[in-house]
Amino acid sequence: MELQRAIRHAKLTRDMTVSQLVDSFSGCAFGAGRLWEAADIYRDMQDDRECTKFFGMAGAMVPAGMRQIVSDMIRNREIDILVTTGANLVHDIIESMGLHHYKGTEATDDVQLKHQAINRIYDVFLPEEHFAKLEEKLQSILRDIPDKLSITEFLSHIGSGLDDNNSILKSAHDMGVPVYCPAIQDSIIGLQAWLYRQTKPLNVDVFADMKGLIDRCYEAKRTGVLIVGGGVPKNFILQSMLVTPKSFDYAIQLTMDRPETGGLSGATLDEARSWGKVGENARAVTVYSDATITLPLIMAAAKGRR
Amino acid sequence: MELQRAIRHAKLTRDMTVSQLVDSFSGCAFGAGRLWEAADIYRDMQDDRECTKFFGMAGAMVPAGMRQIVSDMIRNREIDILVTTGANLVHDIIESMGLHHYKGTEATDDVQLKHQAINRIYDVFLPEEHFAKLEEKLQSILRDIPDKLSITEFLSHIGSGLDDNNSILKSAHDMGVPVYCPAIQDSIIGLQAWLYRQTKPLNVDVFADMKGLIDRCYEAKRTGVLIVGGGVPKNFILQSMLVTPKSFDYAIQLTMDRPETGGLSGATLDEARSWGKVGENARAVTVYSDATITLPLIMAAAKGRR
Amino acid sequence: MELQRAIRHAKLTRDMTVSQLVDSFSGCAFGAGRLWEAADIYRDMQDDRECTKFFGMAGAMVPAGMRQIVSDMIRNREIDILVTTGANLVHDIIESMGLHHYKGTEATDDVQLKHQAINRIYDVFLPEEHFAKLEEKLQSILRDIPDKLSITEFLSHIGSGLDDNNSILKSAHDMGVPVYCPAIQDSIIGLQAWLYRQTKPLNVDVFADMKGLIDRCYEAKRTGVLIVGGGVPKNFILQSMLVTPKSFDYAIQLTMDRPETGGLSGATLDEARSWGKVGENARAVTVYSDATITLPLIMAAAKGRR
Amino acid sequence: MELQRAIRHAKLTRDMTVSQLVDSFSGCAFGAGRLWEAADIYRDMQDDRECTKFFGMAGAMVPAGMRQIVSDMIRNREIDILVTTGANLVHDIIESMGLHHYKGTEATDDVQLKHQAINRIYDVFLPEEHFAKLEEKLQSILRDIPDKLSITEFLSHIGSGLDDNNSILKSAHDMGVPVYCPAIQDSIIGLQAWLYRQTKPLNVDVFADMKGLIDRCYEAKRTGVLIVGGGVPKNFILQSMLVTPKSFDYAIQLTMDRPETGGLSGATLDEARSWGKVGENARAVTVYSDATITLPLIMAAAKGRR
Repeated sequence: MELQRAIRHAKLTRDMTVSQLVDSFSGCAFGAGRLWEAADIYRDMQDDRECTKFFGMAGAMVPAGMRQIVSDMIRNREIDILVTTGANLVHDIIESMGLHHYKGTEATDDVQLKHQAINRIYDVFLPEEHFAKLEEKLQSILRDIPDKLSITEFLSHIGSGLDDNNSILKSAHDMGVPVYCPAIQDSIIGLQAWLYRQTKPLNVDVFADMKGLIDRCYEAKRTGVLIVGGGVPKNFILQSMLVTPKSFDYAIQLTMDRPETGGLSGATLDEARSWGKVGENARAVTVYSDATITLPLIMAAAKGRR
Repeated sequence: MELQRAIRHAKLTRDMTVSQLVDSFSGCAFGAGRLWEAADIYRDMQDDRECTKFFGMAGAMVPAGMRQIVSDMIRNREIDILVTTGANLVHDIIESMGLHHYKGTEATDDVQLKHQAINRIYDVFLPEEHFAKLEEKLQSILRDIPDKLSITEFLSHIGSGLDDNNSILKSAHDMGVPVYCPAIQDSIIGLQAWLYRQTKPLNVDVFADMKGLIDRCYEAKRTGVLIVGGGVPKNFILQSMLVTPKSFDYAIQLTMDRPETGGLSGATLDEARSWGKVGENARAVTVYSDATITLPLIMAAAKGRR
Repeated sequence: MELQRAIRHAKLTRDMTVSQLVDSFSGCAFGAGRLWEAADIYRDMQDDRECTKFFGMAGAMVPAGMRQIVSDMIRNREIDILVTTGANLVHDIIESMGLHHYKGTEATDDVQLKHQAINRIYDVFLPEEHFAKLEEKLQSILRDIPDKLSITEFLSHIGSGLDDNNSILKSAHDMGVPVYCPAIQDSIIGLQAWLYRQTKPLNVDVFADMKGLIDRCYEAKRTGVLIVGGGVPKNFILQSMLVTPKSFDYAIQLTMDRPETGGLSGATLDEARSWGKVGENARAVTVYSDATITLPLIMAAAKGRR
Repeated sequence: MELQRAIRHAKLTRDMTVSQLVDSFSGCAFGAGRLWEAADIYRDMQDDRECTKFFGMAGAMVPAGMRQIVSDMIRNREIDILVTTGANLVHDIIESMGLHHYKGTEATDDVQLKHQAINRIYDVFLPEEHFAKLEEKLQSILRDIPDKLSITEFLSHIGSGLDDNNSILKSAHDMGVPVYCPAIQDSIIGLQAWLYRQTKPLNVDVFADMKGLIDRCYEAKRTGVLIVGGGVPKNFILQSMLVTPKSFDYAIQLTMDRPETGGLSGATLDEARSWGKVGENARAVTVYSDATITLPLIMAAAKGRR
């Protein structure tokens, strides 16, 4: 082991930029050191013109207020392929209709909330009536959908029906970014599809997206991935490399999950090297901290540096 | 607030049974108190003849050595509906072929593992060659599959092709327990389906399972759920009640996930009451502890009590 | 890397003992595998007649209902040296006076509790009036205390004044087990000492205990440690080896703390090897799970095996 | 419940300052929303001229590179009373001697490190020889120490012997900020005191600091606390209010600890209201995220706003 890089203590200055703050972490350890590393990898990944950039997003990032950041990333061409959860898409559609989520509190009486028809997502409140409007909107969008398609096509169709440039789904549709959502039925969209299918034919094939995704991996010169949370998006992105001779060249994970339970969400990115999902020499780092703080930090720092 | 139930300190005796240990937690607080509560709810749920029992299993429970416990639960009719991840099913199929997972260590050199063709799941090692045998097995099973079916039918077909009564998939098939796996493509099964579809037609509809599941919820007199981990299984089970006038009457979650990040995996079961997923008066508890310890504890305690 | 020990899946039987359950984890991984390892190390440590056994206890184990288990361990000679927090001792003294802690709930209105003079410790409630009685008791015990002593002597004096064989402090006093509590002033005992010193002399020397502890480490043939939580008890025990040529031969930690924040509480026991606190070849394991569940499990399993 | 404050999604701009980033979180939820709340409370607390400001620091913040931030806080009069751990002070003294900590990695062979005489603190490496130099320095500083004093006096004496304005201990000494360290013996300082006492008298009284601290609490018009981590610093600060009729008016905690294990470190600040440690109407928030990221963020944001 070598003792070559002395810890340099972070120093704060008046009116410093986010980019300067993150740079001041370059000589730090623990989370601060990892955050700097993540920002540095992210910059490399964005500077690499031949890198296909994956973004995996689990968790309730949209209700938390992270929607604009993600749609801006898409429109700025920082994301080539998006993999996310049905929940994030449902909440994105709700916001695209001009309907809001509200700041609430997690210290509350959930039975009373139920009586007031307010749904809770940690410290976010959502009026139940939004879902009635969502139903109307979705059923209207589904009206002219082809009766046989893949999940990405299904989501692209929904995106085309939205009227809000800050929408993640709409932005992805506009920019030609495919949105993968393997467990799409595990969301209100799934319930709406169930409703729709009571009267109309609709066949969305589970496996139809695999070919396009794997082809994309084969074709890519280099690949990088930014993972928020873990869950299905993390695994789906990483496993897409398994059948190719390649592996991810850049990998960043922002999560609070922990390795010791053995689940994939908390698994280290080193573990992914044993599978060949992340390359032997790939730069990879996990920042164990709240992603609603670290994602904006890394994105804002990247904006300042280019 | 009332001060009625004094803390009674746990007392250990020689050769005590698991059931006695869990009973000794009945006057304790924190995790011990919650574990007792979970065991007590589980007993009520099993004793309730009119309760439809859901079991949600995320995480890598099969590689960890929990497979026999789950298949026994199915064969003992403790599970009516199983929702799990593709990973657990893949590892179940591997074991059903007489192929083993191995105890390894998480403190290791993953690049060296890669060179030795060993895949790592935390402290479990898996030889890569198992996947070649798995491919052979799965392609053989798929040979006579109908070209149009739902995910549960797809998995039931695979289960029927296995030859190991300790298999979860086989046991579910034998006992008529439907296996829901919304993100089935997010697993080696998905990659195998991609391979199969290069030469053969296969159409597995994403939404085809919704009707059967929702009908089951409508028909159930009462419902209970035991959730291991969080992820898609948790949400998929809980949301199945959203379109019915009902809600879960019993709910247990065994997890290490935490609420503060706002994701569904770590959300409290109280939060689910605001949505009407868990009933206002339902008994519900979350045990924040490693599920590979708490699941066997609760199951063994239940065995002793009846 | 070797693939020698196949994962053997846990199998539950009717009326199985805790010892049998823990044995059934011997072929498992993740938390279950670690729990078995911890129980196995604990047995070795207890069987080793020349091993000096340390027990470090942070967290609120007494309010949770773990007091009897710990006092039994002391009386059964399973602990030679106890290091704990002031809080655990305060709650032990309260219980020794026949005053109870009560089961409450963590989902509550803390301002209302304040108005009712009820103090909360997660899901444990404690009437504030207990502290008035504690004051009376402690001031009475302090009446005849020498005016110059060490922390262990101070605590032994308090232990001698208690009248409850289930008390941790009383048991330690009776069995000649020294109780180290480095931050004793960080507890109600500290506030009571402040009160006492307003009228009487009392000099408890911070460093007076170091000699006895270090001498004990020098003299020990072999040493083992069981750590609950982390905090001061963990560090104080581990650092006691630093000035000796020895290191711990057995080490077990039961905690939910995580390594990534860099604090000592969550540090791995491997990290302690780099310092020479834990031996190069020592058996050591951390179980990442709620200690109010895992401590009783390991103790009950040990009782069954001997 | 009211639905009044719509979630406003964070929006990033080129070269935005830290203060602007934190402001952009004002309409967000989860960790981002809490971070904004913490920064806002911190500003209020600093603007309140009659507020006595406590700072509690557990964890290994100095090895991580946070030393300069804390010493700047002291010199900028943002801290009136500091409560911390022996470890942070030991590492502060080492750095004040011009000796460095080094960036290492947590994925390493600790036995090999031991052979190279390198101590590890997560991903920080420290050559063991630093401790020999520390011994020389400390024994030299102790040479002219009074033989009877309190812990704060003991630490002030050490601070006066350091020659580095970036030192936390030296800055505290220079600015007249008392440094409380209840478990001072639980650190290399304790081992050095043991060595010193083998030839010289030294009596540092455990309880001698209580009076000064409690008097300070009585005298304060208003009080605020910023807690990093948990541990002894958190409890010692909060309990200091117990014997006064007052309670904290502002409270911020930055931690990764969780409430469910029942320990004080992870306890919510609401729990502290039931004890009267935090006021009924006090503004209080916990940010569950890595403090090496959130502390600099909040401090840098505060610098920009005043």
